[in-house]
Amino acid sequence: MFKPFELECISCGEKYKTGNFYNCIKCGGILNVKYNQSKYKLKNNQLIVDNSIQGLWSYKEYLPINNENNICSLAEGHTPLIKSKISEISGNLFFKDETRNPTGSFKDRPTTVSISKAIENKCKGVVAASSGNAGIATAAYAAVAKLPAIIFVPENLPNEKLLQASIYGAKIIKVRGDYSSSFELAKKVALEYNYANLTSTYYNPYGLEGDKTIAFEMYNQLGHLVPDFIIIPIGAGPLLTGIYKGYLDLKEMNLIEKLPKMIGVQAKGCSPIVKAFKENNKNVEPWNHVNTIASGISDPLKGYDQDGTYTLNIIKGSGGYAISVSDEEIIDSVFSLGNGQGIFVEPTSATVFCGYKQLRKSELIKKDDLTVSIITGIGFKDTKPLYKFIGKIPIVEASLMEFDSLNILENE
Amino acid sequence: MFKPFELECISCGEKYKTGNFYNCIKCGGILNVKYNQSKYKLKNNQLIVDNSIQGLWSYKEYLPINNENNICSLAEGHTPLIKSKISEISGNLFFKDETRNPTGSFKDRPTTVSISKAIENKCKGVVAASSGNAGIATAAYAAVAKLPAIIFVPENLPNEKLLQASIYGAKIIKVRGDYSSSFELAKKVALEYNYANLTSTYYNPYGLEGDKTIAFEMYNQLGHLVPDFIIIPIGAGPLLTGIYKGYLDLKEMNLIEKLPKMIGVQAKGCSPIVKAFKENNKNVEPWNHVNTIASGISDPLKGYDQDGTYTLNIIKGSGGYAISVSDEEIIDSVFSLGNGQGIFVEPTSATVFCGYKQLRKSELIKKDDLTVSIITGIGFKDTKPLYKFIGKIPIVEASLMEFDSLNILENE
Repeated sequence: MFKPFELECISCGEKYKTGNFYNCIKCGGILNVKYNQSKYKLKNNQLIVDNSIQGLWSYKEYLPINNENNICSLAEGHTPLIKSKISEISGNLFFKDETRNPTGSFKDRPTTVSISKAIENKCKGVVAASSGNAGIATAAYAAVAKLPAIIFVPENLPNEKLLQASIYGAKIIKVRGDYSSSFELAKKVALEYNYANLTSTYYNPYGLEGDKTIAFEMYNQLGHLVPDFIIIPIGAGPLLTGIYKGYLDLKEMNLIEKLPKMIGVQAKGCSPIVKAFKENNKNVEPWNHVNTIASGISDPLKGYDQDGTYTLNIIKGSGGYAISVSDEEIIDSVFSLGNGQGIFVEPTSATVFCGYKQLRKSELIKKDDLTVSIITGIGFKDTKPLYKFIGKIPIVEASLMEFDSLNILENE
Repeated sequence: MFKPFELECISCGEKYKTGNFYNCIKCGGILNVKYNQSKYKLKNNQLIVDNSIQGLWSYKEYLPINNENNICSLAEGHTPLIKSKISEISGNLFFKDETRNPTGSFKDRPTTVSISKAIENKCKGVVAASSGNAGIATAAYAAVAKLPAIIFVPENLPNEKLLQASIYGAKIIKVRGDYSSSFELAKKVALEYNYANLTSTYYNPYGLEGDKTIAFEMYNQLGHLVPDFIIIPIGAGPLLTGIYKGYLDLKEMNLIEKLPKMIGVQAKGCSPIVKAFKENNKNVEPWNHVNTIASGISDPLKGYDQDGTYTLNIIKGSGGYAISVSDEEIIDSVFSLGNGQGIFVEPTSATVFCGYKQLRKSELIKKDDLTVSIITGIGFKDTKPLYKFIGKIPIVEASLMEFDSLNILENE
């Protein structure tokens, strides 16, 4: 069923057989899953989709598992692609609504692939370093896989962010210091105890393969059209790279001719990749003072700045842009997506709408350019920055007279 | 495209043309949407599904809209049906995961139909009385329909439950007293100002038509098999009745031969329908002292106890049962669904798993009986009862030695 594949270092080119592998042993570089693409199968010159499967594994023909029995799925993916109805700005804009995944974010895509691979590799458990969605996804999939899960989180993470992972039964451990300390400890524990490390930077090479399926779905949802632009919130950036990889695969299979331009959006208070893009630096450098409400992309890249450089190169190679947006714009866009589109997003996801407005204003995106913004995560997980923007709620007796006295309808 | 239909009173049989209609003008009874079923269309002797439509409107052939342009959809429905993986009890059990809807609950189904009908009837806005999911769904759909929305909520509702509706841009008004006061004021305001009333009891007759699509989806997902039992949390009970109505339609179209037995589950602290079922009373009476964590079904039915009687009769007519479960069982089941199935549910939804266990124990459901439990809503909206069950979270330095000292792995 599945294609032969191997792992290849993007820096030195060293090749490895698939296994419980992370960075390149020789040079420490990022490993990339390589397929024998000449053997990719099509059916009637189209992608093979097994519609008897509810999750993204309907694209199993293009995913790196040897034995189907190892698949651990929660029916993730196949999310809607919705035309923008926001009246604030008109344009050929679509939203890919990843909030509709089982745990509420796109992280279910990389996790279903990396945990299935962990099962295939007979790992005894899984770990992840995370300050949010990735840890939650790891916890949920580990629950179904009946594997023990340990999630390492920064010490200052609020309880609101720990509840969901706890209910899935994961063991949560706070690690003193910022995210990079959690990242380090997850690495050590996984290697010491043969646990799979599902941390969703580029460290685990299989995650990207799940992200890739977004491209395959959009190919079918857009009637085989390729977007001119795809806008994505980026921390380290594997989602952006994974989607681009999907389009590269489609081109390799001769299903499309052009490739999309990739737009990475960061918050002004943590934008190492944007800084390197603007200053035309070859390498991304770690960010020092993180200060943004967009917690899903507040990643200073300390200890793995090569991840940022990899993403920077993908963006540049695609002819796209890296841009940054302010927290004020982000809050505005949370409400634009809510009251214009009926989608409740976390601040991180709102950045893509700020980004679209910014690029339309500067005319780098034209009105007719087919653009898809990826809505990465549901609003419930990061509500603290939003409460103060709720207006005062009036209280009345159940009488029409009291209701009328509020003059609610006159303001419509 | 759509079938001719009318509204019929379930009590006195009076018939009405479709319109912005609620209870029977003659007797106050519940109105039911009736189709000219002899004209229901099939294709190759199967349901007509328009796969170019992402939401439940792919079943538009069987939904009560005259003009397709009036449809307001957020790509709701088409939720996964997932085999139980919970090891605690084995059996032929499936979960229909309604948490995957756009606003996180099944209420998006009735709301997409009732708001589309409101647009068709040229209503100037919408109201709903709600203490949770229905108000949130109303707010989201009104946002996309560009209609003003007013949500009436009981005065003691916590802010946690108001945030999402606020972000969709609805006007929220607290009404002194319990839910029945909100219900009364919503009714008055809607009638006075020609706003559609989307309150999701049986009051708006179109909502049930959205619920009905769950039956159509399950018909296709189960390879045309009919479940022996369907387990549903019930407040007033329109979801249960809507699903049953879908199966009645399928039978009318000669697609199935038998009907499912309907199980309604209530919380012990608010179980007016269960009380009438157990005591074999003809009519359901309002409940006096509500006391349960299952806020989505803590409906005392004050002011519309006829709704409870209607649901009671559907349950009895199907050969099913009404059962109640304790708050302790509910909390247990929240964790069973989380760490056994990877689904994060609100307490209300957890009742269906308690119910299944209870009925298996009493052998009213046998191991091999095909049973579907409806998971109605996502866990984020009702988290307060859960925090105290999170264990103590350890904190360590990023060192393997400190990690080892926790003895986490020995406990696996």
